Amino acid sequence: MFTETMFPVRYAESDQMGIVHHSVYAVWFECGRTEHIRHFGMTYAELEEAGALLPLLKLTCDFHRPIKYGDTALIKTRLISAGRTRVLFGYSVYQSLDGPVCATGTTEHAWTTKELKPINLSRHYPDIFRKMSEMYTFATGE
Amino acid sequence: MFTETMFPVRYAESDQMGIVHHSVYAVWFECGRTEHIRHFGMTYAELEEAGALLPLLKLTCDFHRPIKYGDTALIKTRLISAGRTRVLFGYSVYQSLDGPVCATGTTEHAWTTKELKPINLSRHYPDIFRKMSEMYTFATGE
Amino acid sequence: MFTETMFPVRYAESDQMGIVHHSVYAVWFECGRTEHIRHFGMTYAELEEAGALLPLLKLTCDFHRPIKYGDTALIKTRLISAGRTRVLFGYSVYQSLDGPVCATGTTEHAWTTKELKPINLSRHYPDIFRKMSEMYTFATGE
Amino acid sequence: MFTETMFPVRYAESDQMGIVHHSVYAVWFECGRTEHIRHFGMTYAELEEAGALLPLLKLTCDFHRPIKYGDTALIKTRLISAGRTRVLFGYSVYQSLDGPVCATGTTEHAWTTKELKPINLSRHYPDIFRKMSEMYTFATGE
Repeated sequence: MFTETMFPVRYAESDQMGIVHHSVYAVWFECGRTEHIRHFGMTYAELEEAGALLPLLKLTCDFHRPIKYGDTALIKTRLISAGRTRVLFGYSVYQSLDGPVCATGTTEHAWTTKELKPINLSRHYPDIFRKMSEMYTFATGE
Repeated sequence: MFTETMFPVRYAESDQMGIVHHSVYAVWFECGRTEHIRHFGMTYAELEEAGALLPLLKLTCDFHRPIKYGDTALIKTRLISAGRTRVLFGYSVYQSLDGPVCATGTTEHAWTTKELKPINLSRHYPDIFRKMSEMYTFATGE
Repeated sequence: MFTETMFPVRYAESDQMGIVHHSVYAVWFECGRTEHIRHFGMTYAELEEAGALLPLLKLTCDFHRPIKYGDTALIKTRLISAGRTRVLFGYSVYQSLDGPVCATGTTEHAWTTKELKPINLSRHYPDIFRKMSEMYTFATGE
Repeated sequence: MFTETMFPVRYAESDQMGIVHHSVYAVWFECGRTEHIRHFGMTYAELEEAGALLPLLKLTCDFHRPIKYGDTALIKTRLISAGRTRVLFGYSVYQSLDGPVCATGTTEHAWTTKELKPINLSRHYPDIFRKMSEMYTFATGE
């Protein structure tokens, strides 16, 4: 189960190699993740307001082909695995709708309080856990 | 009365014209402003912790010459004018210590609470106002 | 004659005041400008490929109300004035389609070669000048 | 053999969790890498001018503890392994000189031409390869 997010590459995202700077992919992954979570009935802004944050534990990104200003970036986001304390998202970045895959990556997150204390989501925020449960059932595995 | 802040240009700050992207200058101004405030005995982090924020009301920037990756940026920051509700900083960006001026700009700020409500600094935070008073006396005028 | 560009605010664009960092507005202006130019038959990527660049001479931005993560940003872009050597764009940023105006600004640009040498567009690139002429006729004035 | 790079955290690098946004670490790694390469007698800007680029193939980052505005970031960079076509750098990010390690990561790069074609450095640019050879001898291994 994928969520697709598309947007034109921003000029500011290019660097002097004439390609999108590698640090931008983490921002794009975040855009995809935001969309994926929203698709399941709760925005990430609402999650934060309710007190549950999802800071990163780990990021990986493989760069296969450069993306350039003028291209349209397409991010396909999926949930790979999800538990009560951690979740793992996977991403593929395409150069337009029928373009080649340009980057793939993962982000692992912990559920925490606003003070960044790790929590067990189902125990601390059973309501949020219930709302997230549909997303959880669509975890794709590795 | 100027504060000088120097750092090498970051690769990520370049764009596909091979020059520093114009949005970066606002970040550099902020680095200069942070340094200028710290020079007068209180860090901006301490200001925020004490409850006083300085969000922007207005930004202007004139770009005279490009700066490139490989250059060292030098920011000269001064306080142009300061009142109990607003402050105005001025900046000049140089390409290295004895290089030409590349950009000039200003930022105007309001003193606010953490909730971004405008305040009269001397009335709401007389202690901070006292600590800032030395900086205030060095306002250069336009 | 306005062009409208909309997108959700990115989490990475927020700062620790909980609002969009002021340096981001220059990037959003650029997104609006890109869209505005494309609307008139030539993409900015094509302009660059043809040899004509539009680096900034001056940026101004007035911040009226903060925008936050969770909001949708709407940028209305117009051409204020345009000559053979310089162009001036104006921007208004709204918090969603029927939300209040949050920021207004302008960017002034020079037509240059790839080596950033200023040019007279109609003399150096008469073809581009012709293609841009429709956009030019829609300049709104101050 | 480590290179140390220190700088104050920028306000613009914070996000609404009140910590440095995770995408910033890739930029900091780049600052460390730039410093490490320069330490061995050639700047990255000179490398690019000579025609040899080092685009990323892979990035990993583990986030152990947040870094905040007000902190000083210290990046320790080392070369883990280096061949004629690829190099691998390792990074540790500390919160000040005697502070705890906050993040660790790696970046893998290919040697390429300006057109991003992969090359064998010793064959295409024997002069650069010679200049880099001292850095190569200090590869630390995993």
